[in-house]
Amino acid sequence: MNTFGTIFRVSLFGESHGPVVGVTIDGCPPGIKLTEEELMSDLDRRRSGARGTTQRVELDNPEILSGLFNGVTTGAPIVIMTRNTNKKPADYESLKNIPRPGHADMTSKIKYSGFADPCGGGHFSGRLTWGMVAAGTLAKKLLSPAEVSAEVIEIGGTTEIDRVIEDIIKENDSVGGIVECRITSQYPGLGEPFFDSVESKISHIVFSIPAIKGIEFGAGFRSATMRGSEHNDLIISSGGATSTNNAGGINGGISNGNEIFFRVAVKPTSSISRPQETIDISKNRLTDLVIEGRHDVSIALRMPVIIESAAAIALADLKLIDRGISGERENR
Amino acid sequence: MNTFGTIFRVSLFGESHGPVVGVTIDGCPPGIKLTEEELMSDLDRRRSGARGTTQRVELDNPEILSGLFNGVTTGAPIVIMTRNTNKKPADYESLKNIPRPGHADMTSKIKYSGFADPCGGGHFSGRLTWGMVAAGTLAKKLLSPAEVSAEVIEIGGTTEIDRVIEDIIKENDSVGGIVECRITSQYPGLGEPFFDSVESKISHIVFSIPAIKGIEFGAGFRSATMRGSEHNDLIISSGGATSTNNAGGINGGISNGNEIFFRVAVKPTSSISRPQETIDISKNRLTDLVIEGRHDVSIALRMPVIIESAAAIALADLKLIDRGISGERENR
Amino acid sequence: MNTFGTIFRVSLFGESHGPVVGVTIDGCPPGIKLTEEELMSDLDRRRSGARGTTQRVELDNPEILSGLFNGVTTGAPIVIMTRNTNKKPADYESLKNIPRPGHADMTSKIKYSGFADPCGGGHFSGRLTWGMVAAGTLAKKLLSPAEVSAEVIEIGGTTEIDRVIEDIIKENDSVGGIVECRITSQYPGLGEPFFDSVESKISHIVFSIPAIKGIEFGAGFRSATMRGSEHNDLIISSGGATSTNNAGGINGGISNGNEIFFRVAVKPTSSISRPQETIDISKNRLTDLVIEGRHDVSIALRMPVIIESAAAIALADLKLIDRGISGERENR
Amino acid sequence: MNTFGTIFRVSLFGESHGPVVGVTIDGCPPGIKLTEEELMSDLDRRRSGARGTTQRVELDNPEILSGLFNGVTTGAPIVIMTRNTNKKPADYESLKNIPRPGHADMTSKIKYSGFADPCGGGHFSGRLTWGMVAAGTLAKKLLSPAEVSAEVIEIGGTTEIDRVIEDIIKENDSVGGIVECRITSQYPGLGEPFFDSVESKISHIVFSIPAIKGIEFGAGFRSATMRGSEHNDLIISSGGATSTNNAGGINGGISNGNEIFFRVAVKPTSSISRPQETIDISKNRLTDLVIEGRHDVSIALRMPVIIESAAAIALADLKLIDRGISGERENR
Repeated sequence: MNTFGTIFRVSLFGESHGPVVGVTIDGCPPGIKLTEEELMSDLDRRRSGARGTTQRVELDNPEILSGLFNGVTTGAPIVIMTRNTNKKPADYESLKNIPRPGHADMTSKIKYSGFADPCGGGHFSGRLTWGMVAAGTLAKKLLSPAEVSAEVIEIGGTTEIDRVIEDIIKENDSVGGIVECRITSQYPGLGEPFFDSVESKISHIVFSIPAIKGIEFGAGFRSATMRGSEHNDLIISSGGATSTNNAGGINGGISNGNEIFFRVAVKPTSSISRPQETIDISKNRLTDLVIEGRHDVSIALRMPVIIESAAAIALADLKLIDRGISGERENR
Repeated sequence: MNTFGTIFRVSLFGESHGPVVGVTIDGCPPGIKLTEEELMSDLDRRRSGARGTTQRVELDNPEILSGLFNGVTTGAPIVIMTRNTNKKPADYESLKNIPRPGHADMTSKIKYSGFADPCGGGHFSGRLTWGMVAAGTLAKKLLSPAEVSAEVIEIGGTTEIDRVIEDIIKENDSVGGIVECRITSQYPGLGEPFFDSVESKISHIVFSIPAIKGIEFGAGFRSATMRGSEHNDLIISSGGATSTNNAGGINGGISNGNEIFFRVAVKPTSSISRPQETIDISKNRLTDLVIEGRHDVSIALRMPVIIESAAAIALADLKLIDRGISGERENR
Repeated sequence: MNTFGTIFRVSLFGESHGPVVGVTIDGCPPGIKLTEEELMSDLDRRRSGARGTTQRVELDNPEILSGLFNGVTTGAPIVIMTRNTNKKPADYESLKNIPRPGHADMTSKIKYSGFADPCGGGHFSGRLTWGMVAAGTLAKKLLSPAEVSAEVIEIGGTTEIDRVIEDIIKENDSVGGIVECRITSQYPGLGEPFFDSVESKISHIVFSIPAIKGIEFGAGFRSATMRGSEHNDLIISSGGATSTNNAGGINGGISNGNEIFFRVAVKPTSSISRPQETIDISKNRLTDLVIEGRHDVSIALRMPVIIESAAAIALADLKLIDRGISGERENR
Repeated sequence: MNTFGTIFRVSLFGESHGPVVGVTIDGCPPGIKLTEEELMSDLDRRRSGARGTTQRVELDNPEILSGLFNGVTTGAPIVIMTRNTNKKPADYESLKNIPRPGHADMTSKIKYSGFADPCGGGHFSGRLTWGMVAAGTLAKKLLSPAEVSAEVIEIGGTTEIDRVIEDIIKENDSVGGIVECRITSQYPGLGEPFFDSVESKISHIVFSIPAIKGIEFGAGFRSATMRGSEHNDLIISSGGATSTNNAGGINGGISNGNEIFFRVAVKPTSSISRPQETIDISKNRLTDLVIEGRHDVSIALRMPVIIESAAAIALADLKLIDRGISGERENR
């Protein structure tokens, strides 16, 4: 359950205010160079600090505990972690019986019979995506020369992103957004029919990222409004190139060699400074909650590198599965 | 790859114009009654015949090959299949080198180096969803008394469904649609953090259904336009009931006990009677293709029972995983 | 649980006296020729008929339901089954409450709360190995040119096999034996450290064959009596050839390129014609049981092809995993 | 590959002379107390120091990085590691091109194309069993009140263990041995037919422990010499108690409620002080190798707690799988 992947396997561990967050990567081919600087490059993109992101600042320095020798992957499991330095468990003590709306406080309490770590979302925190980004750096190397890139295309329903962010900051509120990810597919033939389609694998890992509430490939929800004559991508070369790309580079769950792309809907950050009504479980009555502290105005702003990492991990796994079954393909 | 589920495991097999399509179900608890009549009830909903659906008619009678004794599950793997009776492989012979736009013809040819069964999509055919529906019947029983129900809510961007269908028939075209699925959750606490969230599991299996191009939970893509103060569902009881349900019954990937619901975007049927340009691979030049034969005007019309089945399979697996880890819960 | 393998995946289904026994094979590379005649070649070796084997005769004809097109694997899941023709459920009705010693009658009743199919062992029957042999035929093709061969080397503690069998027939008893399996390894580098060593994978599948109670690789239990100076195989070429082969071709769980070999202990057939004491569950008192009908004097006699199949399946999976992670290797 | 278990999942990471060795445990129920002292209790049994064991001494102190809150498991993944303090990579530098007989030096070099960490066996080292023992402490708690205990029953073919050890020390040699493990089964009904029998699961994990070359359950290899009338365990109660226990507590792969027991063959430690011939790969010629440094006279002496841990992990996973499928059982 807590592992993603069949060959290239990624597991996340840690808690928001525990000693560490980290990742285990199994099934990584040997002989791949990996430096802490390369890791920091993506991890820095994930870090907060920009306008509209939380003021909690973590050094985020990665420590590679295993699986590398002389800076190169050995074939053994790779564990990378970072120490949580800016922990403030006290911030959360008072909230133990007051679940924050939109967060996993209530569901984790129910699921784990009260034993879940409640500090800052514990294992359910968005901080866990640190490990996903670390694994993504490696996954992107496995996919090279294909490139994976994502960007925020809308915040609060508009493309005037900076303006919206300023408005929301003034309102003490948060806001959602849309992130689009594109993979210059060099890999036709990825995906396994029933049940590991490219869409299945990507959506599976993407929906494990906190705050994602929708995903669409190619024309996506717009497909539902289209005619077949309009939606079908005409095939114009024997290599499979198409004239349009409503399919998002995927037919029958298998990559067709055209660009793969998808969009995700990111909900507004659940933590807001405004008072919200919620239940006080210990007293079994409603209460007003004001969430102090630091949080992102729009978590969508920090998503691009996380979404890229998720997509890269999914596709790297599909690449290794396909190579296992069918061997090396000439055109890759 | 070709199996879905950790405990309650479903595998699909067969080809559109091969001898059979069917399903294997592992990890099903013993002692559950299952009749062929019960199976037919859902399978009939999936069958074609209604206005706007293909005229290919299959008897679809299920044959239970294993895993039942005296009409009750035994704990052993259950195999259910149906013979394909209305096979017309000849329909497809001429298309061997002419991939149909929107179909998996091209990608399956690439993926399987020319060895894929090309008749009517072979293993990539929508006919494979027969097995998913058969497994869904059993999965729904595992979830009882929770109910899973789906319906078409839009075709071609409008709710005036019958009118659109008549228009599209006249145009020799096809059209997409949106299906919504609701589960009266009796099960708070389902879902596993990193990486088997409720959304991850449902989207994974749903995207293995041919023609699905998008999925959204709760407020979904609308979340991306919302403020946090508007989107957060206020918690109004110590059991976790919320005043609104923008989360679609899921927080932090874990079901919160409120209704779970999601919508999927179904693309227009790829097979249309209108001429379409595509590549003739043997001649390496463009050609006009007219797809003869029988097909659905909107595959969305046949989707509700398939989507229900997919959701039920995903949730049944999560229920058994949760029970394995945490034991029986009192409130279920 | 009911599936073996990470890439090359095998599932068994069916019951001894149900409609069928069969096998599903996922993850099989496309483009492999497979005929029913080739299947029968190994299936015939598994069949009874020889002196000392049961008189239950099944035609055992394989029916390939999916995954082949024009006699060649397509990449889609392959289902192969055979109808049980010589069913005698009535033989077993009287035994419903009288578990046969040594069989799974009691444990399957407990495990499945009384719902297990009790006829002839149901899903626990040795008859299920039919599917393993069918899958083995395909697995052996994947390993070619490496050869997998097994033989009975001892029955009842002696190599004078025919003589022992005659004695045991006279005694209305059964007897155990030892089977040895050898694989002319062409594949150094198979096996995955922690936890899919070659020994782990082979033993896992071999111990799912009814009646196996021990396995040893290379010098095996004799290793426990040896000195290191005597046991260590000296490496005499840079390709890894060794002067002796106490390791059975495996170091650190990874194949070293020398012959892989192992031996398994097969217990005596549990069904014997002699009266045995057991519990009558319905009456909660001891009773004398005489098992009528047909059974093998030594099930070890039918094991070689089953053991070969099990080993081939395990190694085929390891080969595809290794290829997925590391790509094609030049020397294979 | 590098993970064991379906629900209760264990992964090992680290290298003999890398920064750490450790373990990740997923799927562990919440609410279980675990202290570093409890971990040390089993880890101390695994440590060297006794007569006949290596003089490499590691503090072995466990650091719990995640998955606990206030000393109790939370349901999130648990990572436990220890820093390697007594590293001597220099010991091994000279051996880079001189594979030690009996070790994984040669196979890891082949498998990982020269990228494997060569220091002291790297990821293939017996030191990795540290993590297995840490996970075993938790697994034993899950199985409580059942008890798992193992002991050395033979060294070098004799029960006069201390005497043999002294002899071997004088000879600068090493020696193999046999370890027996017993589980006071409280759990009839564990094991999954085809392919996760109790024997399959236990042997799978046991054979991932370096130096294990054989395993037998109940009468084991002796079964191969027995008559059915002698081997069959008579069932003497409706709960499944048997008069003898040649089956080792397992019928048809399912635990029958009687004591589960098995024996493993441990080969002699591969590292010996005597000169051994091996290949110098860089020069492609034979050379004499003398392994300096510290090693165990008989690695079997350190095995009991490791074997216990392996068995406990396998059975804990089977317990959670069975509970997932069938729910809580009254008699447990």
